[in-house]
Amino acid sequence: MTSNWSDVPIPEPADGQIVAAVTHISIDPAIRGWINAGRSYIAPVEIGEVMRALTLGVVISSRNKQFAEGGLVHGTFGVAEHAVSDGAGVHKITPAFGLSPATYLGVLGMTGMTAYFGLLDVGRLQPGETVLVSGAAGAVGTTVGQIAKIKGARVIGVAGGFEKCSKLIDLGFDAVVDYKRGDLGQQLCQHTPDRADVFFDNVGGDILNQGLTRLARGARLVICGAVSQYHNADAVIGPSNYTALLVARASMTGFVVFDYAERYSEAVAEMSRWLADRRLQSVEDTVRADIEAFPGILARLFTGANTGKLVLELER
Amino acid sequence: MTSNWSDVPIPEPADGQIVAAVTHISIDPAIRGWINAGRSYIAPVEIGEVMRALTLGVVISSRNKQFAEGGLVHGTFGVAEHAVSDGAGVHKITPAFGLSPATYLGVLGMTGMTAYFGLLDVGRLQPGETVLVSGAAGAVGTTVGQIAKIKGARVIGVAGGFEKCSKLIDLGFDAVVDYKRGDLGQQLCQHTPDRADVFFDNVGGDILNQGLTRLARGARLVICGAVSQYHNADAVIGPSNYTALLVARASMTGFVVFDYAERYSEAVAEMSRWLADRRLQSVEDTVRADIEAFPGILARLFTGANTGKLVLELER
Repeated sequence: MTSNWSDVPIPEPADGQIVAAVTHISIDPAIRGWINAGRSYIAPVEIGEVMRALTLGVVISSRNKQFAEGGLVHGTFGVAEHAVSDGAGVHKITPAFGLSPATYLGVLGMTGMTAYFGLLDVGRLQPGETVLVSGAAGAVGTTVGQIAKIKGARVIGVAGGFEKCSKLIDLGFDAVVDYKRGDLGQQLCQHTPDRADVFFDNVGGDILNQGLTRLARGARLVICGAVSQYHNADAVIGPSNYTALLVARASMTGFVVFDYAERYSEAVAEMSRWLADRRLQSVEDTVRADIEAFPGILARLFTGANTGKLVLELER
Repeated sequence: MTSNWSDVPIPEPADGQIVAAVTHISIDPAIRGWINAGRSYIAPVEIGEVMRALTLGVVISSRNKQFAEGGLVHGTFGVAEHAVSDGAGVHKITPAFGLSPATYLGVLGMTGMTAYFGLLDVGRLQPGETVLVSGAAGAVGTTVGQIAKIKGARVIGVAGGFEKCSKLIDLGFDAVVDYKRGDLGQQLCQHTPDRADVFFDNVGGDILNQGLTRLARGARLVICGAVSQYHNADAVIGPSNYTALLVARASMTGFVVFDYAERYSEAVAEMSRWLADRRLQSVEDTVRADIEAFPGILARLFTGANTGKLVLELER
């Protein structure tokens, strides 16, 4: 049996470099897409490369004046125990009182940025509108729903199972659709009597397709992901109800959060205030395990096993 | 054998009404959708009602001061030889020198309005951009392509067969993709080396799906219609490549031309100048026949038999 893991000595930094010990690995649905060949918004990870992942780490040795040894940092160090970096794309973190490290990968990390700019910028949410969010119990979904409530919207979440749906009600969602109950179309109709002005879709497949029929006039359908489809051996299932866009004069728009990098600080500032005021909860699912547990933990995203931000905290 | 046609006496106008003799019936793909039950942008035509259609007619009797007998008018008189109207939605037409009546149903009618506002307003075309248009040899398609050229774009049309493709080159299209040749994906790649900034889709199905992979970053995909899908006995085929919207940060937007009614005059003014300057051609396919030929002529839209604006000119 061959291993996909390499044991390598802890590296030494060259001039200008740091070495970080990775402490937390962000487990994101996007990771699944990064190993597909073909045109995407980012180059695919090639076979033999370290798997790309957003991470937190501690600087264990530094020959870069920007980074002191012992400091906590955020970077794209990948699925590895140690990483060498010249500091590009690495940010120092000073944990605020009461916030877990996972928060910096979740609500205050790429997850939160995705929710914030997807809902407010791509979705152009206005107070009093209705928001439908799929994958609502996921890291992005829980954040989207809460931001929408803070911004004065009515929020309906789509999630799978009683436990997740209950969690969403606890978070302040106005209604939930449990797709595992099987009467998806009927539940959607029941809970969107005035249809939806923003549909934030993380899932694709049948949920996207049926949600298309619930769009209000001028609705904005935000394509954030298609987690139901990433593992399909065959072709992705396309939304046959797409002509509902015409009837509703609606738009369906894809986005990539990296395009908002220059505005991240604006979102972090606003969401940090909401966290401090306890108006926004960071919903986290942190798993302590060693690095070889990574593939199994990643798979949880596609079986609906997790709620909130999934993080692998490395045991050593 | 029963007839679907009713012989009724020519009506008499009540006070405030006109009676028009219908001379030209606009044959539009949208007509096929109007006989489907269910939510749409307009109420369905019920069984037993006169089929809805845009028409030209001559006022043969008038008890409405706005309309003189003998005048040419545009209205939604339906598939009928005569119609009674109170004048609402009826517009007088003064044919310009050299323009055929069909032009007032085509480039200067709903067809032209659809092309103009769909391309310029929904599609937000900018000079120097690349436009991909499907159903390019149809009434809307020929108009979209010509407007795009006038506005300084590069234009690629998708049509079926050598004759239609040649016509598009004559109209000034930069390149054409003949979907009947069978190597659709390869032809699309060849003719959109820099991809497409606007994709104006009249067709749906495989052309939509493959066109999605040719979107430039920030592209606008305008959903005008889905003529390949209206006759499907089974479900519409959804575009499985819709996640290309995410990679391209692109939008797919539906629209209904009626929403632009207040701005029609602006489009008519500009397009009338282009017609007068011979920068814009009205491509017409006028069939002289009696009214019972209507269903067979309508069917031509869905078999790819016509080029340009299809009009039934009533023989009496």
